[in-house]
Formats: sequence, structure tokens, C-alpha cells
Amino acid sequence: MRQICKDKKIKDMNKLLVISAHSADFVWRSGGTIAKSVEQGAETLVVCLSFGERGESGELWKEDPNRSEESVKIIRKAQAQQAADIFGTPIMFLDWGDYPMLISDERIAQLTKIIGDFEPTVILTHTAKDPFNPDHPLAYQATERARLLSCGAGVASAFKSIDPPAWYSFEPHQPEICDFKPDTFIDISSVFDKKIAAMNCMGAQKYLVEYYTELGGRRANHARRISGKKEVKFAEAFQSHLPRVTNSIF
Amino acid sequence: MRQICKDKKIKDMNKLLVISAHSADFVWRSGGTIAKSVEQGAETLVVCLSFGERGESGELWKEDPNRSEESVKIIRKAQAQQAADIFGTPIMFLDWGDYPMLISDERIAQLTKIIGDFEPTVILTHTAKDPFNPDHPLAYQATERARLLSCGAGVASAFKSIDPPAWYSFEPHQPEICDFKPDTFIDISSVFDKKIAAMNCMGAQKYLVEYYTELGGRRANHARRISGKKEVKFAEAFQSHLPRVTNSIF
Amino acid sequence: MRQICKDKKIKDMNKLLVISAHSADFVWRSGGTIAKSVEQGAETLVVCLSFGERGESGELWKEDPNRSEESVKIIRKAQAQQAADIFGTPIMFLDWGDYPMLISDERIAQLTKIIGDFEPTVILTHTAKDPFNPDHPLAYQATERARLLSCGAGVASAFKSIDPPAWYSFEPHQPEICDFKPDTFIDISSVFDKKIAAMNCMGAQKYLVEYYTELGGRRANHARRISGKKEVKFAEAFQSHLPRVTNSIF
Amino acid sequence: MRQICKDKKIKDMNKLLVISAHSADFVWRSGGTIAKSVEQGAETLVVCLSFGERGESGELWKEDPNRSEESVKIIRKAQAQQAADIFGTPIMFLDWGDYPMLISDERIAQLTKIIGDFEPTVILTHTAKDPFNPDHPLAYQATERARLLSCGAGVASAFKSIDPPAWYSFEPHQPEICDFKPDTFIDISSVFDKKIAAMNCMGAQKYLVEYYTELGGRRANHARRISGKKEVKFAEAFQSHLPRVTNSIF
Amino acid sequence: MRQICKDKKIKDMNKLLVISAHSADFVWRSGGTIAKSVEQGAETLVVCLSFGERGESGELWKEDPNRSEESVKIIRKAQAQQAADIFGTPIMFLDWGDYPMLISDERIAQLTKIIGDFEPTVILTHTAKDPFNPDHPLAYQATERARLLSCGAGVASAFKSIDPPAWYSFEPHQPEICDFKPDTFIDISSVFDKKIAAMNCMGAQKYLVEYYTELGGRRANHARRISGKKEVKFAEAFQSHLPRVTNSIF
Amino acid sequence: MRQICKDKKIKDMNKLLVISAHSADFVWRSGGTIAKSVEQGAETLVVCLSFGERGESGELWKEDPNRSEESVKIIRKAQAQQAADIFGTPIMFLDWGDYPMLISDERIAQLTKIIGDFEPTVILTHTAKDPFNPDHPLAYQATERARLLSCGAGVASAFKSIDPPAWYSFEPHQPEICDFKPDTFIDISSVFDKKIAAMNCMGAQKYLVEYYTELGGRRANHARRISGKKEVKFAEAFQSHLPRVTNSIF
Repeated sequence: MRQICKDKKIKDMNKLLVISAHSADFVWRSGGTIAKSVEQGAETLVVCLSFGERGESGELWKEDPNRSEESVKIIRKAQAQQAADIFGTPIMFLDWGDYPMLISDERIAQLTKIIGDFEPTVILTHTAKDPFNPDHPLAYQATERARLLSCGAGVASAFKSIDPPAWYSFEPHQPEICDFKPDTFIDISSVFDKKIAAMNCMGAQKYLVEYYTELGGRRANHARRISGKKEVKFAEAFQSHLPRVTNSIF
Repeated sequence: MRQICKDKKIKDMNKLLVISAHSADFVWRSGGTIAKSVEQGAETLVVCLSFGERGESGELWKEDPNRSEESVKIIRKAQAQQAADIFGTPIMFLDWGDYPMLISDERIAQLTKIIGDFEPTVILTHTAKDPFNPDHPLAYQATERARLLSCGAGVASAFKSIDPPAWYSFEPHQPEICDFKPDTFIDISSVFDKKIAAMNCMGAQKYLVEYYTELGGRRANHARRISGKKEVKFAEAFQSHLPRVTNSIF
Repeated sequence: MRQICKDKKIKDMNKLLVISAHSADFVWRSGGTIAKSVEQGAETLVVCLSFGERGESGELWKEDPNRSEESVKIIRKAQAQQAADIFGTPIMFLDWGDYPMLISDERIAQLTKIIGDFEPTVILTHTAKDPFNPDHPLAYQATERARLLSCGAGVASAFKSIDPPAWYSFEPHQPEICDFKPDTFIDISSVFDKKIAAMNCMGAQKYLVEYYTELGGRRANHARRISGKKEVKFAEAFQSHLPRVTNSIF
Repeated sequence: MRQICKDKKIKDMNKLLVISAHSADFVWRSGGTIAKSVEQGAETLVVCLSFGERGESGELWKEDPNRSEESVKIIRKAQAQQAADIFGTPIMFLDWGDYPMLISDERIAQLTKIIGDFEPTVILTHTAKDPFNPDHPLAYQATERARLLSCGAGVASAFKSIDPPAWYSFEPHQPEICDFKPDTFIDISSVFDKKIAAMNCMGAQKYLVEYYTELGGRRANHARRISGKKEVKFAEAFQSHLPRVTNSIF
Repeated sequence: MRQICKDKKIKDMNKLLVISAHSADFVWRSGGTIAKSVEQGAETLVVCLSFGERGESGELWKEDPNRSEESVKIIRKAQAQQAADIFGTPIMFLDWGDYPMLISDERIAQLTKIIGDFEPTVILTHTAKDPFNPDHPLAYQATERARLLSCGAGVASAFKSIDPPAWYSFEPHQPEICDFKPDTFIDISSVFDKKIAAMNCMGAQKYLVEYYTELGGRRANHARRISGKKEVKFAEAFQSHLPRVTNSIF
Repeated sequence: MRQICKDKKIKDMNKLLVISAHSADFVWRSGGTIAKSVEQGAETLVVCLSFGERGESGELWKEDPNRSEESVKIIRKAQAQQAADIFGTPIMFLDWGDYPMLISDERIAQLTKIIGDFEPTVILTHTAKDPFNPDHPLAYQATERARLLSCGAGVASAFKSIDPPAWYSFEPHQPEICDFKPDTFIDISSVFDKKIAAMNCMGAQKYLVEYYTELGGRRANHARRISGKKEVKFAEAFQSHLPRVTNSIF
């Protein structure tokens, strides 16, 4: 039967939900925006669909090719938890497996319930296309479907339904090949030290931290050039999947 | 083994098949074109994949949040039947469920058989993309696949195969966001009274009837501006998925 | 030689520049947003490239096919001035002629100077494509080029250069055919009475006022469905040509 | 001052206007459709913007590299006239020059007047993009602008305005590279002998006649496969630039 | 546990993998490129996902509508083997069934293993879209996913991973409708006799051999016009899904 | 009259033509590829349409806002010549002016002659779209048109015509916003020291050299990930405007 759904007080608070295919993606691709949102008083939640234990844990497999997948999961979880703690955000691990990640109706229902319970204002996740990663598009598809099922058709219904959250893709490794065309740059200058600290928890090769530090500076260069806002030193880029509704053109 | 497939006499008659995710979609989005086709002597068939009992029956859930889904289905079926009667078209209900609608190989086979048996000249259904409805794109995908399976490769085969029907998407609620770009406007002026009567059967909020009446007028305005045909007072818009084959450029 | 360009105090004020091919476009397509911006304390300026005296003054030519173009211009100017007064915005008329509007290097320079002097935060104009109007795409092209020339390459230069303004296309008559895909909806509920009053000054057929009143309601319906913001009663839709730079994802 | 524009009797007749950059394009790309339209009782007119005397007259320059451009024009004109006679269509030559073709406001006005005087139901011309021909996109642009200027804004105006003609691009030499995506196939089986006869007047290399004969067969293969219409033996392909307004979905 | 993956010697040899939905597709669409690669000393492998026994064996069903599917498979396999022998390439048959072809996680794993074992430099398969064939897009999807799973994330991992192969779609029957935009033309002039011989093994209607012979000539015409390389007499067209990495712009 | 056009010996040599809107663009965007081509024995030519004296000479105007445009041109020319010398390439300066650059029929003819005389195998220039630079799209348009006019229609003609050169856009400052989608990565590792030396001649702010050094490393990262070629340390990215014709799929 139909449920009563909204607590006005909670609804008015901004809430950010980040859905990460592997347990490190949320750090590289949206860590600054998470930290910035926490700084601004928003409620945040990170959901890791997998630990990336099979395909995204290169350093661990390189140091010991014979270790067990379970031992990799434990280390990856600890690293992600540490990064989440630096940002000051809760984090959940769904342990769906990677390479291949498999999506089922039950997993969609699980994600739908998480979205329905958290009632996010904004969702961040991967791009619909990624010719270098089989799990990222699946994370996108699962998010797209679970988001729709949690919102319903905008009328009273047989199930709890929430206000439709805005949603964005965060930046993939090779933007042009993933058809990623950023339309929103978030100034993360004030929290970039936290992003660096969190990236350093991930046990990845040093060059990746440099790569994403440089990317933060490059996107800030773009943001300054677009807007004339000289104060932007580091930025993250996102692509929205829906129009923005606002009461000011500025 | 291969079957003999075509009765020449039936084949020469125009036949319209409308595949509707929920039991009301066919009225709002293509009711005028159904009525017009009946008026022109075509054979028509409406297939409702679900009753929209969970997600699209706002008024029923609002008046009694504790009613059963079965009771909603019964009411929705009666409403859709009434609308079909006004148009003068047969209607089938597949009862696949909504929110979530789930597609399986068996359901594709069921729809393939319906298409193969009816041998439509034209199929109308939803758009491939709809960021506000999880079931509409599924209806599109099911239709796309079942249509292809019923046609085969255009050569003799192990199964009955029919001539490839033309097929169109009808207009979604927010056209631009659904990548809906109409290429065909149907003048429904002569049957618009039937569309209004059918819309009034649907038990929806009064504003929806106004919304789609206004849309009919707006699309007619566009049609007049495009063509100079001043007699078009109400129109419905469609987007074709295949080229048109004809013997005149006019 | 190079000029000193920015007065910090003026620069911090939001400024809206609307570039209108004919003297009525700004009312139908962005009147609510102009009024809303004035209400919010922004500085605004409307630039009409032509009076629409030849091609867009149907009622005047219908009542007297033999009147002079000059007399049409005088009436059109008075109407536009009256609408601007209702919105509370200054307005300029460049008198470039319509059907055909012709663009020259001198006219681009004229528009570049206007943009450079006003230093807008946001520019609104037509779409790049309009298969029903030869002048609208020209207004787009002139705006695009003049905006770039007024900004320069983002470095010190031989001419005054301003911070790059955001810029948007406002809604054309047939959005899909113009490749118009709105990404920004402005809630104009609080000033919609002013838009109605201004539309009624334009001397156009009564149906146009109804058409755009209805469009305001329809776009509000879309905005509510996208965002859950039930308070939006009337809205205008815009498409941005550049990413947004901000410090919050909400 | 405004003019009275429509003679009802003429207006009701279908009229086809073909705008050809060089004096042979209309034969290769739309000869069958011209012949078919004549067969169906339509009024037709071919306008050749140039003779293709400099860049498209390979056989003539090959047999005598020292001949004069004027002599080439005379031969090309005679060939095009002969082809037009076979189709049974009037033909005009504007002699704008080729390689480079140059467009001016005066030439746009000249073409606008031709369109306004002829009042076509349908216009055929080149594609907007052609990475192998500098003149074809110019013919497209000139046609697009002249068509809009001849129609006006759909209201009474300071100049004669006609009902907006439908318009299509015909098939370029390398369709995919020109972004040509056919949406309309015209069955030209009944007049294909005339197309062959006309092609043989063009003085081109024999392989070109074979090339376009084969293309007619290939497009018919596509048309049969799309529609099941087994009677289509030869076809020409077109891409529409506007939606179709009709009163039947079949 | 992680496996040691590369034998340097084998890796340096060029290797071509062709994934064909039905047992004849590889001949019509890429037979010349297979033969050319063999001629150039590359290792090649053809994988037929099905025999096309139900939907693509028109001549066999026409001559005996009552034959069994098993008997069709045997004939189709012999024909494909004969064509492969002419090209000098190994061939595998997965017997996944056609009309409908069904994809499962196990079948993806099967294809992933084949790719991982063969370690191709280049993969050729169908287009992502084909409005005239339900199995071709499935072959594309299976290839896309299996290719990604065999490559991993480019770091050490829990499974064998290979260098990412380049991959292309070969030409479908109706290129424009399948969104096929060729970016690579392979000159197959020197091996076209083998393609003709192989096509003649397929037991298809004579017109298909003519159709693809003519296509080879047409694509060569395009290739000559693009590049000025007059020696190209027959060509096949492909569309790449990834950028090319090279050390020369020529 | 028609001219004899090809000297077989010269034609067989690879020739690279770079068309640069301002006198520094060729260094930042294609310097490595120029140096690499010289290293490989190709003939190269750089054509600077302007000196970028008004809009792209920030450092010069900053150090002395009152200097003359002529003095800026002299310095810019010397810097570009120095960079060209490091690459070992000839360079031409057309002095068309910048901000605004204006294109005329005469200038198109001038560029057409340069292309016809040099007979390039490959042309590199800007992107068709650049929302941050008014001159870059003009350079693209001028190149596109001049290239077509120098090639003719592929048949004997009234003017010299050359084999159609391949052509590419080089990378703009903000790739996604310019619709730049790289399809070709050139490994410039072996000549990157020359690119650094040339960049250091340009008198620009130090951060620009860092910016493009980092970009070279980032594009190499992409190239390695795409191809598995671990030896790529620095790369430049390009987007082709035409298919590639080759005799090998590898």
C-alpha cells in the first residue's frame, strides 16, 4: 500500500548521493565536491557498488599476484573508509563484484530503496558510455533506473515516491571518448587539501594523484576562462542529465 | 518449419497497432490518430502492456491509499475499454505490471506473436528515452525487438515473417528532454471531439484533459505554419524510425 | 592602445542584455525573465536589431496594406517602448531592417561596442537555427561574434575587453525544429502579470497572447515535474551555450 | 507596399522546383523524380545556378585543355536543355559561375524572386555539407535563405509571401560524409528509361551513367527492404528539412 | 589468482578477429579485409555466433520449407568453412542460435575467453544499430562487453588481461539507417578475386554477389575521390570505435 | 586555360601544411607533429594568417599598454620565426589582422593559391567551433573553402587542381566545448624537447608552457591506455575531417 513520504524538515536540507562503481571512483572524480558539500552543511552519502577488487586494484595484485580476492576487498574497504572520513561523509559498500559487475532486478530494487530512503537532492555517478571500463556504464544504468523507480510518475502511487533528484555524471578518465561534455564546474579550491589527503589514502600509484591534481588545476583554468572568476584554483567538472529550475537567470 | 504467411486481401488493408506502456498512454498520445484511422476504414488494435496500476493511477490512490492493486487494475481496465469503444478500436491488456515493468524473453515472444498475427502496416509506441518514466523506454525496446523478430531478414525463413511495418514514436510529456523531434503531424481536427470524450473517461485530473487539448491546438499551430494548411485545428505529432517509401515527392 | 576596463563596483552588479531581432521578440520570449531580473535589482538592457517592420507586423499591414514602412516603424517602436516601460528596462533600437536583415562588419562592430560598454553578466538572444525565420539566426550569429570580439582572448590586449558573459538562447516558436533543447527554466510566476500586460501592448492578434500565456503554464508544468517545486506557476525556458561555474552542486 | 499573392487555381497544383548548383546535378540526383512529377501532372522548374563550366566539365577540358570557358558554357547549356526536354521540364540558367561560386545579397534576392514567382510546393537542392564540393553547400545556403525570405513570417507583410514549400536535399556523391540520411525514397521505376536517356546527354564519362544506374537499383533494394513493396525497381533518395503535415498515418 | 599473460613474440604479430552474427556476414562485409590480412602475414580468426539457420538461410528454406533446422546448420557450416578456406583463415562456430539470438552472462564469458586467448590487434564486428536485423546489434553488444572484460582497467588484476584491441564496425546493408559513417577504407583490389570466390560459396541468390561486388567498386570510387589513389579498384569500409595511436600524421 | 599539375617526384613526398590563425597557435597545438614530420623527412610549411597582435599578445600589452600594433607584430613575427627555426620548418605570414580577422574572396583566393602551389598531403588547422575565440573558426572556414577550391571536383578542369589533402583540426584550449573529439594521437616523444624549446620562445606566461607540457603528457597517457603502447611519453591529439584510405586494417 501507499506510504506517506516526506518529512518537510529533512527535505529542505540539501543532500548529495554519490554512486561509485568501484570503491575509489568517488575520490578521484567527485571528492572535492563531496568535501565542499559537507563544508556547506549538506548531508552526503557515498554508495560503492563494488570494491573494484578484481580489476581496479593494480598495486595490490602487483605486490602479491597470489593474494585472495577477499583480502583485496578488506584493504580496499579500509582505504575508501579512510577517504570518506577525511571528507566527513558516510559510506556504504554493496559488494556487487567487478569485472564483470552484474545487474539484476533485485540489485535495482536494492538501489531504489537506498535512493528512496535517503531522498537525495542531487545524485552523482558515472557516464553512460566508457569504452575503457565495462562497469562504469552499468553503474550509470543502475542509477538511472533506480532513480526513476524511486520517483514514480509524479502522482500519488502504490509506493513511496520522492521528489526527482537532479543528477550528473562526473568526469571519466578520457572525457571526449566517453561523450562527456561538462556543463557545470564546481569550485573546490577551499577543500582541495582534503581531496589530496583522500587521494593519498587510496594506495594507488603516485602518478594518479598527480594526474588528478593536475586535472583539478586544468578544469579551474577552464572555469576561469569561461566566467572570469579569477579565484577558482581547483575545480571538478560535471554533466547534468536534466534542466535546471531556478528563479534567477544569473 | 516455415509457415505460409500472407492473405492478400487482409494485407492490402491499412492496419494500425498502438503499443501503450500503461493503459492510458494511447489516449493522451495517439487517440486522435486512432480515431482518424478508424474513420478512414483502417483496422486498428491497441495493446496495453500494463494497467499503470502502481505508478500512473494517482487519482485512485489519492482517494483511497489503502485500496488493493487488483481493484485499481479493474477500474483502469474499464476506463481504457471505454476510451477504446469511443474510438471504435479493439484493445488487449497484457498485464505485465508497472513500476517496475520487467521484460523477459517470453514477453518479447508474446509481443512478437501479436505483431505477427496482426500484421500491422504502422506501429505507434513510446520514445526510446524518457528521463521521467522508467516503463516508457522499456515499451520502446520491447516493440523494437518484437517488430524485428516478426519481420525476419526479408527472406524465406524458419518462421512466419511479415512485411516490415512502418513505426513511429508518439509524443512524450516533455518532448525535448526525450529527444523527441516530430517529423509527422497528423490532422485530427475531424475526430477531436472523440479524443476529448475518451480523455474524459480516464478518471484523471481535469488539468490533464486541458493540457492535451491545448497540446492538440499547439501542434496544429505548428502544422499550419509548416504547411500553410489553414484547415488544421488539432494535430498529433509523431517521429518516424524509418524512411518513407512512396511514389510521389508531393 | 589598450584601455583600462573594469569598475569593480559596477562589475559586481548583475546585468542582463537581451538582443532581439525584431522589436517584439524580447516580450514573447524573455519578458518574464527581464521583469524578474529588474525585480531582483539587476541592470537590464534590451537591444532591438530591427522593428520587424516588413515581415513581423501582420496586423498593421492587414488593416492597411498601403501604409508606409516608416509609419509601421513608428508604431512598432512605440509598442516596444511601452512594453519595456512595463518591465522597467531601458531599450535601444538599431534599425537594421528586416526581411532581409543584413549583417556587415560595421554592424558587428556596433554591436561589439554596445556589449563592451554595457558589460553584461548574461546575454539572451535567438537560436542558431530557425527554419521559419531568416532573421533569427542572423541575430544569433551577430551576437555570437560581437560577444567574442568584446571579450578577447582572456589576456591583456589592444582593445578593451570584458569578462565573458554567460549567454543563452530563448525559446523559438517551434522548439524541436530549431534544435532548441532547454536546460534552464526560470520561474516567472511573481511577474507574470507584467508579461501579460506587456504582451497586450504589442498590437498582435489576441491568439498570440493566449499562445504565450499557455506556453508559460506548460513550461511551469515541466519545471514542476523536473524539480518537484510545486510553487512554479509560470516559467520561461532557455538553452545555455556555455558551462556554468559555481561553488555549489545544489 | 504589400501585394496580393495567391491565385487559388494555380496554388492547388503541385509544383516542383529543383535548384542545381551546376548544370548537370539535377539529372544525376533528381532526374527520376522530375520525370515522375511531370508524369503525375505537376508543374516543374529547374534552376541551374551555374554551368559547372570550370570545375565540372572534365570531358570537355580533357578533349581540349585550351578551349574557352564560354565555349564550355554553350555546350553544357545545350546538354542540360536536352536533358530537361527529355523530362519535359522548363529550365533556367542563372550563370553565377563555379569554382568559386560567389553568393551576394543581390543573388539571394534574384533567387527569392524566382521562388516567389513560381510558388513551389516542393523544393529540391543540395546538402548543407559536402567535403568534396565547394559550390554545393553554397547552393544549399542560397536556397535556404531565399526560401525563408519568400515565405515571410506567416503573417501579412510588406512584401508578397507564399506558403512555405516543403524542401529536401537530394543525394550527394558520398552520402555518409555529407551527413546525408535519407528519409524519403521515391519510386522512379516507371520513368527510369527517361533518366537513362537524360544521363546519356550529359557528355560525361560512361562510368557515371553506370554509377547512377546502379545507385537507382541499390536505393530500390533499400526501399523494398524497408517497405516490402516488391514493385520498386529504381528509386531516388531524399532528406527532408521539415516535418510532414498529412491527414493519415498510413 | 592473477595470470601471466603475454608472449612477446606472438604479441608482435598482427592479429585480426572477426565476430560475425550469422555464418555468412563475415564474407559479405569483411571478406576482402580478411584475405588482405592473410596476404600480409597476419594471424586471423573468424567467430560465427550462429549459423543464421532460421532467419538468414532464405534459399534453403525456399527450396524446401519442411527441412529441419539441423540440416540447415550443416549446410551453412560447410559453406562458411569453404569461404574461410578460400581466405585461408581459421573459423569457429559458437551455435548461439538466431532469430532470436539470446545473450547471457555465460555467453559473454565464453566470448571473453576467446578474445583473451587470441589476443587480437584488431576486432571487426557489426554496428550498434540495425533497424533491419535483431541479431546484429546483439553481436555488437556482446563484442563490446567481452572486449572490455578481456582488457581490464589497464592495471594488474585478478585475471588475465590483454592489450586493448582496436575495433571497428563493418558495413551494414543500409549504412545511413544504421548510423554507419565509414572512417577507414581498406584497399582490397589485390584479393578481390578471393572475395568473389568466397561469396559464390554462400549459396545465396546471385543478386547478392552482384550487390557486394558493386559495393566494392563504389567504395573504391569513394576512396579514390578522397585520397587521389587511382590504384584502388575495390574497397571495404569500416567505422572505428576508438582513436588511432600512431607516430606519423601521414 | 587548364594547367598541367603534377610532378610525380614531388607528389610522392609527404607534405604537411599548418594553417595557424595567430602566429603562436602552430607551436602550442601542433609543434610536436611538425618537428616529428621534419624528423621523418617530410616537407613542411606553416602559414600564419595573423600575428595575433591585438588579441593574443597579452604579455606585450601588459608590459607596455601604449606600444603600437606594428611594434607588437615585429616581436611576434620574430618569436614565431624562432620557433619555426627550432622545428626546421619554413613559415609564411599573411598579416590578415586579428580581433576581428576578416575573410574576403581575395583572401580565400590567396590561400587557395598557397595550397595549390604547396600541394600538401596533410593540412592541420583550427576547429570549426570555438566559443572562446572569434578568429579560430574563421581560420577553419577559410581553410575548408580554399582546400576545396584547390582540389576541384576530381576531374579535368579550367584550373590547376591537386589531389585532395587529408585534413585535421588540432586541439583547442577547451576541447569539449569546441566539439573536439580526437581520433588520432601522434607520438611526439622523440621531439618533445624541441616543442619545449619552441614554446619557450613565444614570450608567453610561464604557465602556458607548463599547461601544454602537461597536456602532452596527458594525451600520451590516453594514447597508452587506448593502444597499450607503453613507449608513448608525449602526444598531440587531432580530429580528422575525412576517412582514411589505406591498404591494411592494422
